[in-house]
Amino acid sequence: MRTIDLILKKKQGLELTKEEINFFINSVMDKSMPDYQISAFLMAVCFQGMSDLETSYLTEAIVKSGSFVEQSKLPKGVLDKHSTGGVGDKITLTLTPLLAASGIPCLKLSGRALGHTGGTIDKLESIPGFNTDCKIDDMIEQVKKINLAIGAQTKGLTPADGILYALRDVTGTVDNVSLIASSVISKKIASGAENIVLDVKCGKGAFMKDPQDAVHLAKLMVQIGKHLGRKVIAVITSMDEPLGRAVGNSLEVIEACEFLKGHYKEGEVYELTYELAILTLLQYGICTDRDAARRNIDELITSGKAIEKFKELVKAQGGLAEALDNYSKLPTAGQKVEIKSEKDGFVENIDAYKVALGCKLLGAGRETKADKIDLSVGVYLNKKSGERVNKGEVLYTIYSNDDNKTAQCKELCNKAYEIAQEEPLKKPLIYEIVQ
Amino acid sequence: MRTIDLILKKKQGLELTKEEINFFINSVMDKSMPDYQISAFLMAVCFQGMSDLETSYLTEAIVKSGSFVEQSKLPKGVLDKHSTGGVGDKITLTLTPLLAASGIPCLKLSGRALGHTGGTIDKLESIPGFNTDCKIDDMIEQVKKINLAIGAQTKGLTPADGILYALRDVTGTVDNVSLIASSVISKKIASGAENIVLDVKCGKGAFMKDPQDAVHLAKLMVQIGKHLGRKVIAVITSMDEPLGRAVGNSLEVIEACEFLKGHYKEGEVYELTYELAILTLLQYGICTDRDAARRNIDELITSGKAIEKFKELVKAQGGLAEALDNYSKLPTAGQKVEIKSEKDGFVENIDAYKVALGCKLLGAGRETKADKIDLSVGVYLNKKSGERVNKGEVLYTIYSNDDNKTAQCKELCNKAYEIAQEEPLKKPLIYEIVQ
Repeated sequence: MRTIDLILKKKQGLELTKEEINFFINSVMDKSMPDYQISAFLMAVCFQGMSDLETSYLTEAIVKSGSFVEQSKLPKGVLDKHSTGGVGDKITLTLTPLLAASGIPCLKLSGRALGHTGGTIDKLESIPGFNTDCKIDDMIEQVKKINLAIGAQTKGLTPADGILYALRDVTGTVDNVSLIASSVISKKIASGAENIVLDVKCGKGAFMKDPQDAVHLAKLMVQIGKHLGRKVIAVITSMDEPLGRAVGNSLEVIEACEFLKGHYKEGEVYELTYELAILTLLQYGICTDRDAARRNIDELITSGKAIEKFKELVKAQGGLAEALDNYSKLPTAGQKVEIKSEKDGFVENIDAYKVALGCKLLGAGRETKADKIDLSVGVYLNKKSGERVNKGEVLYTIYSNDDNKTAQCKELCNKAYEIAQEEPLKKPLIYEIVQ
Repeated sequence: MRTIDLILKKKQGLELTKEEINFFINSVMDKSMPDYQISAFLMAVCFQGMSDLETSYLTEAIVKSGSFVEQSKLPKGVLDKHSTGGVGDKITLTLTPLLAASGIPCLKLSGRALGHTGGTIDKLESIPGFNTDCKIDDMIEQVKKINLAIGAQTKGLTPADGILYALRDVTGTVDNVSLIASSVISKKIASGAENIVLDVKCGKGAFMKDPQDAVHLAKLMVQIGKHLGRKVIAVITSMDEPLGRAVGNSLEVIEACEFLKGHYKEGEVYELTYELAILTLLQYGICTDRDAARRNIDELITSGKAIEKFKELVKAQGGLAEALDNYSKLPTAGQKVEIKSEKDGFVENIDAYKVALGCKLLGAGRETKADKIDLSVGVYLNKKSGERVNKGEVLYTIYSNDDNKTAQCKELCNKAYEIAQEEPLKKPLIYEIVQ
């Protein structure tokens, strides 16, 4: 077999065999396929696509490119959750303690913020002392004890994905669904997940702008999961505007705590966390219908079990659990600037991408992996879409450590907000569920 | 401007500007665009194509990537001829002496044999002493004196094409018409050609199998030539079976000499050389109609001017002109094996690719640039398509230096020949003329 023949075959739109895909990944790993051939192959994949079966083979080959966790080493039914990346997305912090409290073992490997989207690892690191640089064996032990561990992606897992992703990023071959799906699912499988909950974002603040593309990606990931013996639930959710009210690392931790303490009874964080938790409890057979599942979740929250599980996680990973009650122990910005509405009306829309750029300007995100992040800064959206606002009422609040940056952020956020005279129609948060 | 943006723009199928294409070639030359980005870009071009205008810009940028001959240094109206590569194609050796004898200055840079097709440079080197490693300035002086010079492609011209071609070859991006056209035409323009005669091959023995693709390529090359102020004539010709009767380096030189001496009055070498010469004489205004052009060519041959011009070329480049009369001075194979027909009938077809592989096995061609060639070996097709053959008559002759190779070549050539009972319809040699 020759690497050039793989390129030519894919260029012609033919389906590659399992042997050919294994050969591809082996050639990537042993460097017998040079970068320029890999990138030509990836570009051909962007144009010709891959079948579900090819994508499953690719996923499996990526898993086997490095070390991976044997399922037998883990408690039965370990769950992992993944979001394709959004603005203000703190659902990992609300969902996993809830599910862990319900008895489901959750082992989650997370990423850091990059580009305009945030990262769970950075959010957790805003809790003083919280260690995310965990060994996988330690995480497994922790899951066995408290049902929950969240750590940064380790280098030993899916090294082929690392090589492919680095090349895709610089060769314009990021956006193919099979390449995305195999990258996501291979990491989940390598870390031993049996059940996978996926949140596929689409809209202005997501990598995927079009719901149809997001549904396509979700279906493909569910399908690959099935091929490889995993149970996958995928929801396709709107990322036109930020998820919830807080955008910024410590601000999002606070919002997650508030939800887990039962202070939220509506809004996107509530709606999405409940939906994902309900679907999961049903899939695990812990509850038999949606109403029972909802009551189960209510109970986990009102009893304090949910927030207690989050504190247990924080303690287990060396963090200051007290900070989840006393938020002043979290990184706090020097300035808190309330921006007031200049007119009466209804919030019609808040452009997630513009808010994200504003927060990145403040220092809440990074452009390159080497950039340092300011964990204290961000934006709190006092008014969200569909809400009435009067002239002079606070529209949003900027948490900043720099006057100039505050001004720049304000300019962007002002552009992000659209105020209308009429009450807008409620936009759905969840477009579709695939399982 | 960023190189990644060029990839993304082409991937989306958008037209690149002149500035963007110049930036691309400049980035290739100064190595700021890494190989893996170039190959991703080339693959995107294979899928999305390039407009005529983009291809013209690319051609011009490739010309300017290195040194090139100013037209002012050359006699007015210098002609170059190019064939996209075929089996038994010795038309450069028949056409250029004829045109030079008619007063048209011809400066031709040629390639060597690679893969299954032959190369003019190797053929000329079968003439003892013939030097093809010429400096471009010496070639210009020679054209001024005798209207004709043929040398190997020099390294200083179109270096960007060299880089792109090397990458295309190993990344499955050879077959895009814009990439092929810019590669061909840039070399011609860089060597100072004002008029260009192109022979675009299609069929079993050519890189292009489909006449429509060949017509597409021919039209594009004529169009680019026009954009860049050159006059281009392109013929699309069949390469289903070898061109003429001789395949192999010294054997083809002999066939070319025989034509130039007026010993041929029919057959593909005669037909194609006459057609290209007629079109060129008309384009240069040397003759005003086809009949006059044909008489002009007849006269150049019967008067001996054509073969004399070939001898002048050979002398000027240090070769043994005597060998064009006394063929035993050319490299001669040790074995001459006549293969006889096992049945009566008509030759219906001779597969050019199989014959080419047979000749390569004998040593007449090379697989990689480093392979050494045996200039004496080859196959002479005593019977060609449409000709009657009786059982026991010689079908073809193998010129070889090795019994084993003779047997292998015979096996391939026997498969190449199809003998039918009915006289086959005559297949056209020239499909279309574009100018």
